Amino acid sequence: MRIDLNCDVGEGAGFDEQILPLVSSANLACGFHAGDPTSLRETLRLARRHGVAVGAHPSYPDREGFGRTALARSPERVRDDVVYQVAALAGLCRAEGVALRHVKPHGALYNAAAQDRALAEAICEAVKSFDPALAVVCLAGSPMAEVVRAAGLPCAEEAFADRAYTSRGVLVPRSQAGAVIEDPARVAERASLLVRQGYLGSIDGRPVSLRADTLCVHGDTPGAVALLRAIRARLAGDGVEVRSW
Amino acid sequence: MRIDLNCDVGEGAGFDEQILPLVSSANLACGFHAGDPTSLRETLRLARRHGVAVGAHPSYPDREGFGRTALARSPERVRDDVVYQVAALAGLCRAEGVALRHVKPHGALYNAAAQDRALAEAICEAVKSFDPALAVVCLAGSPMAEVVRAAGLPCAEEAFADRAYTSRGVLVPRSQAGAVIEDPARVAERASLLVRQGYLGSIDGRPVSLRADTLCVHGDTPGAVALLRAIRARLAGDGVEVRSW
Amino acid sequence: MRIDLNCDVGEGAGFDEQILPLVSSANLACGFHAGDPTSLRETLRLARRHGVAVGAHPSYPDREGFGRTALARSPERVRDDVVYQVAALAGLCRAEGVALRHVKPHGALYNAAAQDRALAEAICEAVKSFDPALAVVCLAGSPMAEVVRAAGLPCAEEAFADRAYTSRGVLVPRSQAGAVIEDPARVAERASLLVRQGYLGSIDGRPVSLRADTLCVHGDTPGAVALLRAIRARLAGDGVEVRSW
Amino acid sequence: MRIDLNCDVGEGAGFDEQILPLVSSANLACGFHAGDPTSLRETLRLARRHGVAVGAHPSYPDREGFGRTALARSPERVRDDVVYQVAALAGLCRAEGVALRHVKPHGALYNAAAQDRALAEAICEAVKSFDPALAVVCLAGSPMAEVVRAAGLPCAEEAFADRAYTSRGVLVPRSQAGAVIEDPARVAERASLLVRQGYLGSIDGRPVSLRADTLCVHGDTPGAVALLRAIRARLAGDGVEVRSW
Repeated sequence: MRIDLNCDVGEGAGFDEQILPLVSSANLACGFHAGDPTSLRETLRLARRHGVAVGAHPSYPDREGFGRTALARSPERVRDDVVYQVAALAGLCRAEGVALRHVKPHGALYNAAAQDRALAEAICEAVKSFDPALAVVCLAGSPMAEVVRAAGLPCAEEAFADRAYTSRGVLVPRSQAGAVIEDPARVAERASLLVRQGYLGSIDGRPVSLRADTLCVHGDTPGAVALLRAIRARLAGDGVEVRSW
Repeated sequence: MRIDLNCDVGEGAGFDEQILPLVSSANLACGFHAGDPTSLRETLRLARRHGVAVGAHPSYPDREGFGRTALARSPERVRDDVVYQVAALAGLCRAEGVALRHVKPHGALYNAAAQDRALAEAICEAVKSFDPALAVVCLAGSPMAEVVRAAGLPCAEEAFADRAYTSRGVLVPRSQAGAVIEDPARVAERASLLVRQGYLGSIDGRPVSLRADTLCVHGDTPGAVALLRAIRARLAGDGVEVRSW
Repeated sequence: MRIDLNCDVGEGAGFDEQILPLVSSANLACGFHAGDPTSLRETLRLARRHGVAVGAHPSYPDREGFGRTALARSPERVRDDVVYQVAALAGLCRAEGVALRHVKPHGALYNAAAQDRALAEAICEAVKSFDPALAVVCLAGSPMAEVVRAAGLPCAEEAFADRAYTSRGVLVPRSQAGAVIEDPARVAERASLLVRQGYLGSIDGRPVSLRADTLCVHGDTPGAVALLRAIRARLAGDGVEVRSW
Repeated sequence: MRIDLNCDVGEGAGFDEQILPLVSSANLACGFHAGDPTSLRETLRLARRHGVAVGAHPSYPDREGFGRTALARSPERVRDDVVYQVAALAGLCRAEGVALRHVKPHGALYNAAAQDRALAEAICEAVKSFDPALAVVCLAGSPMAEVVRAAGLPCAEEAFADRAYTSRGVLVPRSQAGAVIEDPARVAERASLLVRQGYLGSIDGRPVSLRADTLCVHGDTPGAVALLRAIRARLAGDGVEVRSW
């Protein structure tokens, strides 16, 4: 058994050097919500040193709001924004001799595309026109996962061990109490259940079935390092290999 | 749980149309042991229609011997031969809008590189210089698997459900009785054991541990179709998903 | 005899539709001083319709100052900025099926790199690492032209028919009276002399020798269209072909 | 004034080391009529050392006949053969960090495509699908030149200073007396006339107008070196710069 662990990096949070040795894939900001060319190259070198698979993490153009503002942006603009960002990061990858492996939308774009098929299709069109070998990472069980597969692109479905789900498999909004689970032991237990049994306990008490190719740990808090260590220790004990798909 | 099923195609055996719907990845001859540009494009279209991941299947330059003759060829020549073949197939992929995902050496080159680190390194150097995102497929547990990982390339270890292994994990040569297992039910049973338990019965009777990312079924006999059907039925019954890594 | 006519476009000046039919190559803003992904794609389609060769026009990161502010930016940062911008535009080109042919730095970066070999080398390193087939456009006779050639990159030396030169071959700064020549007939006469005889009258009265592969007309004034028409009419009368190198 | 001098290399004729310092662009065999991956890489290194622009020289699949046999091959097959060969050479270029700049069909394919629009279109379709930035070299004034331009590809029209033309601008077949001009002084004189005045004396005595971007000297005879030296000396005396387009 195996699972990928992914984390967003290159966003200036200051923990990349501790996080990259603990994950198997990393999503790099592309300049629209965070990141500049020279710091991204440094992150690429760090990712290469730790054998971490590199992906692009395109966003709405929103540095002020760190890409977390829901923008009313047409699918056509989203498509062109994604081509621009993925291509720019791919150019830095080429200059560093690093392979670009996947694309994972960031923040508000991730959430919108997960449910909005037209946005998901715009992202897939962008990825296909640039490089049809790139995998697209999206919310496990979401309509976007169907769109990615229908586009003929490799699809990596993502779950969050440190986020509460409703019994219908939807993430509990961060604004709600209990939405984020911070206890490393509990997060590790959830990760183990999810990988080995394919389900998670929901906030309603009932188990929710989820089929995930990758687990996300958010990289912008110091707690991320402790969570990752707990998850890896637990998965190692379970005989689960951590590596990119 | 999941596993990739791969098969060599584009070699003129005449079964590609029946085989491609049954596998999750396909290795396409690149012209050095079989294949010509126009028939390869047809195979690419077929692979796309069935959502099959496409790889290059480079060989020693040996059309007469179908790439099965062991040639005394320097690592430097092998490296350049592999760049040429992978790039040529990648060009046809680009023209068809199909992603190239992996490289699997063919025949005598596969066998030689599995054990000869200098040859394995030459192949990895070729792949890295062309596209470091390409996975390299090699014999599970072989020295080549270590070379591929040390090169920082994605590595897909391959096992053969229809071939006998010794208890040391080495393939029994085709020239020996019992080397090839033809009974679909037995092959399917072996595939199931390998994927779910990580071992196979060896020709000596003792189980042999194998960690495989992909199972190969040889595509050049009519029996391949029956084997693939039996394997897929068995894996479906076991709840194992068949898809490329 | 032949010459290339180039113009900066995609900068929002509003004259692109009139200008593109009159030039043989166009430099597209890459987002750092002007331009956004969707409007750049529109400009790419316009360039394709008119058979105009497309180049990237990377800048210092300075949207406020339209890339005209001299920034104290290290060669390493300039290199990474150029990779990012050229790659991003190349991605949009790929999505539109348009060839990217050259790179011409914009504004303050153009002026600084023309004289500063370390900056010129940083730009060349960026271009080579991304695509060594791209030509680099630089000030005719400048130290940068030597750097480009030493880097083994195709070099296109650029002259300005509508700008005054000193007798030492240096552009008269825009702040000085007489720096910009606005009379279409006089600009056309200068273009003709330059292309056919290889010299221009300088502001000091003495002729200055210049060997140019391309003539630039600035695209951000309505006068550009009249200048271009006058130049083309004059060159056509001289039997000079206008096309990209 | 300037002109490109091109020569076919990598064909095993043994003069590449003497010829490459004398030309500005070189056409490399791609394996279908001559050339193997390792010797092509050596030629690429030689071309880079001398700053020579590299092009692909695809052929009919005809090693026995050195690509000089006219084959009845459908446009579709020609298209796929050209994609395969250009992509394979481009892969070797990428591995060596050398830019691929142009495509020039070889031998019987060159002659057939010059006059047969369907073949010329097949070649252009192949080039566009692989890399629309590649120039296509073809017989000056031929129908193929119109096809290349209509396809939106950069077109380099080619003339032969050492071959006789009829007054209608058609090459005199090699089988006819006087078809090949061997005297270096006379060839140099013809090159000079062609570049500076745009015409050549025809075999009928009347001048024939030709507009050429590149002059070809055949690389498979020892005489090539003497011809190239004579042409370069003459053009240098005329003030004509020799460099690729």
